[in-house]
Amino acid sequence: MSKNLNNQKNLGNPNIPNDHPRAQSLHYRHKLVDLMFEKVVTPSGLCAHGRGEAFDYLLGEQTIPPAENAMEAAIASLLLAKHPVISVNGNVAALVPDDIVELAEILNADIEINIFYQAQGRIEAISSILKKAGAKNILGLGDIPPKSLSHISSNRRIVDPRGIYSADVVLVPLEDGDRTEALIENGKKVIAIDLNPLSRTAQKANITIVDNIIRCIPRMVKIAERIKNLESEKIKVIIHNFNQKKNLDDCLEYIINFLQNLMEKTNSK
Amino acid sequence: MSKNLNNQKNLGNPNIPNDHPRAQSLHYRHKLVDLMFEKVVTPSGLCAHGRGEAFDYLLGEQTIPPAENAMEAAIASLLLAKHPVISVNGNVAALVPDDIVELAEILNADIEINIFYQAQGRIEAISSILKKAGAKNILGLGDIPPKSLSHISSNRRIVDPRGIYSADVVLVPLEDGDRTEALIENGKKVIAIDLNPLSRTAQKANITIVDNIIRCIPRMVKIAERIKNLESEKIKVIIHNFNQKKNLDDCLEYIINFLQNLMEKTNSK
Repeated sequence: MSKNLNNQKNLGNPNIPNDHPRAQSLHYRHKLVDLMFEKVVTPSGLCAHGRGEAFDYLLGEQTIPPAENAMEAAIASLLLAKHPVISVNGNVAALVPDDIVELAEILNADIEINIFYQAQGRIEAISSILKKAGAKNILGLGDIPPKSLSHISSNRRIVDPRGIYSADVVLVPLEDGDRTEALIENGKKVIAIDLNPLSRTAQKANITIVDNIIRCIPRMVKIAERIKNLESEKIKVIIHNFNQKKNLDDCLEYIINFLQNLMEKTNSK
Repeated sequence: MSKNLNNQKNLGNPNIPNDHPRAQSLHYRHKLVDLMFEKVVTPSGLCAHGRGEAFDYLLGEQTIPPAENAMEAAIASLLLAKHPVISVNGNVAALVPDDIVELAEILNADIEINIFYQAQGRIEAISSILKKAGAKNILGLGDIPPKSLSHISSNRRIVDPRGIYSADVVLVPLEDGDRTEALIENGKKVIAIDLNPLSRTAQKANITIVDNIIRCIPRMVKIAERIKNLESEKIKVIIHNFNQKKNLDDCLEYIINFLQNLMEKTNSK
């Protein structure tokens, strides 16, 4: 049997009818499939995306009010940070390259590529997407000797000394639990975006935004534009008023109510 | 940028420590990734698997009591069928080839390969896995002119005249909503295995087993062994006592309670 995937290459983008109930979700799925063939996304990244699709379905594929609150607290924390860094993996670069670059610019934050699967040419493929989106300075390219986070042994420990290693606040859209824990242990304030409010990442981060990055990053750009010129005292109040534990509970409650409503709906049919 | 995926080929199977909280789930994920390089599984199949992982997580990655009841009703229906057929796609062949073949044998059911993405050599790759697992007679290979189901326009309509086309009861592990609806419209009794009790497939099928096929197919083999020699009147009672609507509600209620318990647990930490 041939190990060559070439004839699977055109399987990413069948014609998705616009009236398909899940057309947008399928569009992004096929975008990721296409970018797997460009090495930006890994096969495991496709599975991880599918997990996200399912959890997004439990939110009704919409941004819920507690996520809006968490975004505000996140932007406030990033605006007050001394050295904010946005960690970007293959799926993030594939899904929201323009918005990530815009967000980094408005926050004056560094972008650092952090990937687990180190295939040859992969960093370059991700970096090329970010550059096309307008990124000027990208860290994590391996152009200077890397540093290691403590409390983690896998290659997820590797960080850029100019980036995450010396950051005080790190935004991790789509992060692994081990790495989130290590970032916390290394004294960083961690802001996670995770559709599963029960994941280790969601539970361990300082601020968790339970939302799909496709909706969330553009909204964070707008929030940043709205609050970046506030006095720092007012920005501090936003952070002070945010309660991570309560916010996660609110998200879970939202999901539970959503399921209960769906159950009643199917019963009244 | 090279379109060649060769250097992603060994990314499927990093060493998963046995004490990883999700070791078994990761094992199956990497099995699917490996089989994508053999053309058995498609990139989109990896996304679909990820969706399943998430819904399985909401069951605590275990077979729940209503799923056991649905399995009994499913086996009873397949035993009383005149012409039972098991529909197999790439993910099913990748995950549980041996169990599917064993189940077909004990039920005297046909196995028919039904795939949406028709890459060259793909049917052969799936068929080869099933043959290795001991399947003697496999339908859906395109060796005779196919028939079309009505009420569906995509290539999901294509079926084997000796198989699904003339079947009265069809078991569809991991099926698409459009195709499930078409099977129902074509007068088949449809038994679905679907981890999402709210999916169109789950909602439209006559009997839905909300479980992971990895746990479910081996259990169905055991149930078949246990009840296959009962008098047909007793088998009819099992079918009669099964209430699909109530069973789906029980599954949803289980998930809602599971989430509520997890919320309380994280709150008492």
